[in-house]
Amino acid sequence: MLKKIDHIGIAVKSLDAAVPYYENALGLKCEGIEEVAEQKVKTAFFSLGGVHIELLEPTSPDSPIAKFLEKNPHGGVHHLAFESSDIRGELAHLKEKGVALINEEPKIGAHAKQIAFLHPKSTMGVLTEICQDGEGGCSCGH
Amino acid sequence: MLKKIDHIGIAVKSLDAAVPYYENALGLKCEGIEEVAEQKVKTAFFSLGGVHIELLEPTSPDSPIAKFLEKNPHGGVHHLAFESSDIRGELAHLKEKGVALINEEPKIGAHAKQIAFLHPKSTMGVLTEICQDGEGGCSCGH
Repeated sequence: MLKKIDHIGIAVKSLDAAVPYYENALGLKCEGIEEVAEQKVKTAFFSLGGVHIELLEPTSPDSPIAKFLEKNPHGGVHHLAFESSDIRGELAHLKEKGVALINEEPKIGAHAKQIAFLHPKSTMGVLTEICQDGEGGCSCGH
Repeated sequence: MLKKIDHIGIAVKSLDAAVPYYENALGLKCEGIEEVAEQKVKTAFFSLGGVHIELLEPTSPDSPIAKFLEKNPHGGVHHLAFESSDIRGELAHLKEKGVALINEEPKIGAHAKQIAFLHPKSTMGVLTEICQDGEGGCSCGH
């Protein structure tokens, strides 16, 4: 069962430009910046009422975020992530319901979470992530 | 000051197709369906951990959601909404910070909330809504 909306992933051209908007205009506090080599992104995290906003800047032209920015040059919402306490059970349930999975097996994302993406063709165009806290947490305190 | 992420607005071609996905695959409960004549949309609301998901189906070809679907035919995240306890103060603060406002004055949205949109050119491509509960609430119990 899904517990909450864990985060909203937002593609940005530049964290240097985006972080000040989230901090100064929206009044949110940047909780940290982390590079996720596997996804070829640098992320900045904010939190509001238990939901994270994850800004994603590509670190390589072949990053999935770089491809998203080709279509959406100003940036935009890239994905929604739902937290589950049982990601493998959740993926099995979704598959049984006919949802196409991009990742049949969870992989490791930012904050050492287990993550898996559902295909937008099954989710009304919204790239959707299911995530679960990694065992033992991660070194950055999240 | 922003209190929380109030809702995520998601454009869909058809509530009849989208609601069963959110109910049966994601396991969320539809809290109600409401037509917002001014926005030319029919909305379905879901809730998870205090954050709402607002599905938006256009009711007219000149609805803003119909225009979004022309560019994103499968649907997608249309806007993010942040709740404020003082929408007018929030808008004044944002304007002072150089954020372009689509609505200088709040208008009435779904659930009789006061709402105002920020221009995506100032928000890194993310159409952003600020909202505040309407005085006295609304008839649907939200």
